Amino acid sequence: MSQHPHRRWFYLVCYDIADNERRDDASELLSGYGPRVQYSVFEATVESPVAFERLQQALTDIIDPDEDQVRIYPLRVPDLAKITIIGNRRLEERNDFWII
Amino acid sequence: MSQHPHRRWFYLVCYDIADNERRDDASELLSGYGPRVQYSVFEATVESPVAFERLQQALTDIIDPDEDQVRIYPLRVPDLAKITIIGNRRLEERNDFWII
Repeated sequence: MSQHPHRRWFYLVCYDIADNERRDDASELLSGYGPRVQYSVFEATVESPVAFERLQQALTDIIDPDEDQVRIYPLRVPDLAKITIIGNRRLEERNDFWII
Repeated sequence: MSQHPHRRWFYLVCYDIADNERRDDASELLSGYGPRVQYSVFEATVESPVAFERLQQALTDIIDPDEDQVRIYPLRVPDLAKITIIGNRRLEERNDFWII
């Protein structure tokens, strides 16, 4: 049993992917991890470091290393409330960070 | 004189902007703040909270609030070394974070 059963790790995942099919594969994968906040930006949550490694491996398997790039930024829970959003266009938004 | 003359604040700025001209205006503005790491993602640095407010205002002036969205995530200096990059495609990269 995990020592931190409720701990979660947050990441911002953004990508430049040159091919439509690979881009769709990446967005489909990432949709399982959290809200798609912009077309190529997801706020991803994982429940363990192992799960994060799985996510990295899955992205590595999807992309073409010569043509694409995925960046993953660690986000800290206190900073989730400090995101500045300018403009009213919305795709998806996280609505659960305050219960962490 | 500032009490923290060398302090800097780091942000990840990403945008979904529907119009080419506004998108170009935003990228031109943001190019003055740091590397364009992906087509719609910049790692921006400011030297004061006032400078951050100016950046926010400038972006607010550029975008159409009904059609566009800019997100600004605070980045912490220790986390700048923890960015995961998958794939070899490169636009621009920061090369100065270790001297902060």
